[in-house]
Amino acid sequence: MEFYVAPLARLIEQFEKLPGIGHKTARRLAFYVLSSPIDEAEDFADALISAKRLVKYCEICQNITDTDVCAICGDTRRDSGVICVMESPKDVISLERTKEYHGLYHVLHGAISPMDDVGPEDIKIPELLKRLNDDTVKEVIMATNPTIEGEATAMYIARLIKPLGVKVTRIAHGVPVGGDLEYADEVTLTRAIEGRREM
Amino acid sequence: MEFYVAPLARLIEQFEKLPGIGHKTARRLAFYVLSSPIDEAEDFADALISAKRLVKYCEICQNITDTDVCAICGDTRRDSGVICVMESPKDVISLERTKEYHGLYHVLHGAISPMDDVGPEDIKIPELLKRLNDDTVKEVIMATNPTIEGEATAMYIARLIKPLGVKVTRIAHGVPVGGDLEYADEVTLTRAIEGRREM
Repeated sequence: MEFYVAPLARLIEQFEKLPGIGHKTARRLAFYVLSSPIDEAEDFADALISAKRLVKYCEICQNITDTDVCAICGDTRRDSGVICVMESPKDVISLERTKEYHGLYHVLHGAISPMDDVGPEDIKIPELLKRLNDDTVKEVIMATNPTIEGEATAMYIARLIKPLGVKVTRIAHGVPVGGDLEYADEVTLTRAIEGRREM
Repeated sequence: MEFYVAPLARLIEQFEKLPGIGHKTARRLAFYVLSSPIDEAEDFADALISAKRLVKYCEICQNITDTDVCAICGDTRRDSGVICVMESPKDVISLERTKEYHGLYHVLHGAISPMDDVGPEDIKIPELLKRLNDDTVKEVIMATNPTIEGEATAMYIARLIKPLGVKVTRIAHGVPVGGDLEYADEVTLTRAIEGRREM
């Protein structure tokens, strides 16, 4: 980095920290910032800080939100009898895009993965169980990723929930096995929801 | 953006403004920021603002710097008799990497381009002429890009400088080292033949 003036070198380094951004792209982005007006850089900086400061987890479903209770949990038109359990907020966005699902969500923020030292207590499973204490919830749809970790997490949670008398279903394997829910198209996701089976 | 919580949507938008960053990449980067610690976001934000606030143009060569006079212009070991004229700070970095050039630079910050409404007064040509007022400078190397705009800019500046009694040269055009003659275009090959040297 010896050829760059210090503040530029620092900005390039920051861009390089982002996933999938190499040195050449980082340099291109940093020079773009230099060439754009100061208010754009300020807006960008403010967006970074605001996102970190304002975005928190919904008290109920653990999805990301900037209010105590997220817009989906707060929407009385949605069916509070169904909870769709997903690994990440990105997955919720993908399913919301289909406009076919009208129940609530629960975001685990991960999946059980002994290889990565992630146990059942490291993801939002206790928060899910707490939601099943009253009789509102009739069905829990396990929509974790169709990966080994996702399947294991679904199985684990299903075993915990069944004794509570709640129906537990798994999304159909319309989603390609080994894939990632984030990149599934709407039709595939819709099929997966329609084809769910009791587990 | 209706599926994203507002501060996240705003951050995604900011990433999308960067050149070559599409919606999916912007979303991935924004979620990465959300998942990383707050100090990282703060460092990033501060690097953005600092780069814009601290980076300015060198009083002499117009290259980017965080001091009044850049490190190259301030280095007395460099040959102040030669100025290499380039379009952008990125070009200076490329040439510095070769470690073969020991003269000074002048950064134009663009090239004359009537199509884009950039005239000779819109780039740092007056600042270059001012540097030629005393007799220090013996040679000006025109190292603008080998494009129509770069060639036109080189021609224009050469015409201004020659009457001052300063030698004006243009970087050689030819086949890139490591390239394949089979894939060289006709203009490049013609230039390579024209510029041949005895060996």
